Amino acid sequence: MLILVLNSGSSSLKYKLYQMLNEEVLAYGLVERIGSTNGKAVVTHRLKNGDKITLEERITDHSEALKAVIEFLTDSERGIVQSLDQIKAVGHRVLHGGEIYSKAILVKESDIEVLESLKELGPLHMPANIMGIKACRQLMPDTPQVAVFDTAFHQTMPRSSFLYALPYEYYEKYRVRRYGFHGTSHRYVSQRAAQILGKNLSKLKMITLHLGNGSSAAAIKDGKCFDTSMGFTPLEGFVMGTRCGDIDPAIVPFLQNVLNLSPNDVDTLMNKKSGFLGMTGYSDMRDIQKARRDGDERAKDVYDIFIQRLVKYVGSYYAILGGLDVLVFTAGIGENDYMVREDVCKHLTHMGIVFDAKKNEGLQGKEAIISKSRSKVTVMVVPTNEELLIARDAYELVK
Amino acid sequence: MLILVLNSGSSSLKYKLYQMLNEEVLAYGLVERIGSTNGKAVVTHRLKNGDKITLEERITDHSEALKAVIEFLTDSERGIVQSLDQIKAVGHRVLHGGEIYSKAILVKESDIEVLESLKELGPLHMPANIMGIKACRQLMPDTPQVAVFDTAFHQTMPRSSFLYALPYEYYEKYRVRRYGFHGTSHRYVSQRAAQILGKNLSKLKMITLHLGNGSSAAAIKDGKCFDTSMGFTPLEGFVMGTRCGDIDPAIVPFLQNVLNLSPNDVDTLMNKKSGFLGMTGYSDMRDIQKARRDGDERAKDVYDIFIQRLVKYVGSYYAILGGLDVLVFTAGIGENDYMVREDVCKHLTHMGIVFDAKKNEGLQGKEAIISKSRSKVTVMVVPTNEELLIARDAYELVK
Repeated sequence: MLILVLNSGSSSLKYKLYQMLNEEVLAYGLVERIGSTNGKAVVTHRLKNGDKITLEERITDHSEALKAVIEFLTDSERGIVQSLDQIKAVGHRVLHGGEIYSKAILVKESDIEVLESLKELGPLHMPANIMGIKACRQLMPDTPQVAVFDTAFHQTMPRSSFLYALPYEYYEKYRVRRYGFHGTSHRYVSQRAAQILGKNLSKLKMITLHLGNGSSAAAIKDGKCFDTSMGFTPLEGFVMGTRCGDIDPAIVPFLQNVLNLSPNDVDTLMNKKSGFLGMTGYSDMRDIQKARRDGDERAKDVYDIFIQRLVKYVGSYYAILGGLDVLVFTAGIGENDYMVREDVCKHLTHMGIVFDAKKNEGLQGKEAIISKSRSKVTVMVVPTNEELLIARDAYELVK
Repeated sequence: MLILVLNSGSSSLKYKLYQMLNEEVLAYGLVERIGSTNGKAVVTHRLKNGDKITLEERITDHSEALKAVIEFLTDSERGIVQSLDQIKAVGHRVLHGGEIYSKAILVKESDIEVLESLKELGPLHMPANIMGIKACRQLMPDTPQVAVFDTAFHQTMPRSSFLYALPYEYYEKYRVRRYGFHGTSHRYVSQRAAQILGKNLSKLKMITLHLGNGSSAAAIKDGKCFDTSMGFTPLEGFVMGTRCGDIDPAIVPFLQNVLNLSPNDVDTLMNKKSGFLGMTGYSDMRDIQKARRDGDERAKDVYDIFIQRLVKYVGSYYAILGGLDVLVFTAGIGENDYMVREDVCKHLTHMGIVFDAKKNEGLQGKEAIISKSRSKVTVMVVPTNEELLIARDAYELVK
């Protein structure tokens, strides 16, 4: 059975075509610069035989982008599938399920309206996510569409984790609460970590650190998310590529007054011009590491803040979980930057981590246990795979 | 030697008169409603013999308030001092020392200007603090004035604790960084806790929890503050009487857009209408406790958030301190609410706390050790005494 996984961004469409149940990736690709007015969109396809095909064409919207993908996949010469009917489901990554969706769903007509109502909670991503679903319903009307939500995994949090101490009516009227994001990634790596260890996830106290361009942590207990670092939006928590993460909220009106910024200006400032970028001019951790080596003081500063905040979050989750069995690193930085992993873990020996610096050093993008066998806490690297989990969720709902 | 300690608020003046070195309080009192246009100010004095004297008079500014205090203290009948000359120093509580003052100072003419330049960092308190100093310089021109700063104790924090991941120029140009507050209280209770234990503070890893109407934590290592929960302003960190503490900073522009709030409106909302008050209508923890017992769901919610955040901060400081020897509770809630202490400590057994629930129960406002002797972490109640530390600082500078 073939499952197509789609991730629709504001001007991009990523896809991955899975053969299930064996979870083989037959093709994957990316349409970039959708709707570009000065220049054509770039469409890249990669096949399992290693071939890479790049095309440039004018693509005005997500529907056309999807059409381009389908045409390629069903192409009589180079195509992967003989007919569109072979694709038995499309799994969509959707940013926000609000408090309504705590699991993947088969999208019904009535869900479209509900998704539309969640737009204001994810104004940057939800319109594109919904466009992707609509385009599929139009082009493949008989194929089931499955929505998998970034927030769903975190819906198990207790009220003490998700409520803010603001006037309660803002929660009731405007749905202001902690939602958390990267849920599919935290769910994938927590399941996979337990599987690697041959243990029951529901018996493990686990902290998963998704460290990429955006970063978040999840505290997992009884197999469920208990707390997470991203909040009402993906801004809260760690220092990120262009996001400040946690700050004194009173800094927001202070900066608005000093710099004469509108609410949207200050939102952009905190989301797009802060973090690594705001401190150094580089948003990528690889550049930060290089700049640190070259003696850049600001790169050293922001790296130190980044590490200290990681250590603090691990400590705070250690406290509320009542202990810790497994600590997992994942995503771009977590999978590939062994210095970050070492710099976090060397601060946590008193929590029972006996780090295996040798095994860790140079390790990139591979599943591994990087603590010693006598370590009370097992530290692991587990590359994330959100698309695979979306394919699995879709398969489960249509099989 | 007599030392007068003053705490000048926007419409109030508190005083305490100490006999040093024996640290005896000869009198203390409060002028309220300074500058009230509809009604008189209320002046209350309390003497060491237990007498309480209340007067009502028209008092237009801090200079007149101080005059009223001095007249009372030097009154030929009921007065405590024969002549003003007996007061050898005045110690002032000052909110903000910026990055300039990391210790108490003897106020020189040039310091007044520097203090004025710090007004924008503490717009609510600094004008009154400066007025208090100016009034003293005018009425007691030959008496040394000592300023003791709420931020000073935290000036030892490393850059990784005090920098935010915002564009670096905001730190350089607008001094946006973590300062921390309640410093005199954290310094007092940490010193006192070490003294009670007969240990060297510089050898202890300690967390002090100042829990009052405003609340903050300090992580103390090598006898110095390493991190603290309040930030650029006293808003960051814990859930407080009327303050929300930590929230996703993106909530600020969101609420501004939804509710059409100015920067100052949203600042007031977070500082004055949130926290316990925003969730329940009560700002006092005693009311929250009562409401919880009466089954109020919102009181239960905000109490749970309050406790969980305390546990998380203790965990995060445990992580960055590399362990924990002493945990101290102080201030209104910390000294008097034994349920809060128990509800925090019962979540921390895995950090080596063996709590003594019996010793803790009902304990109010008294120095005590509330962990069992086999506890790896010593948990203590140490009533704070900021005025005493101000008197000591003043004494040290003029003796």
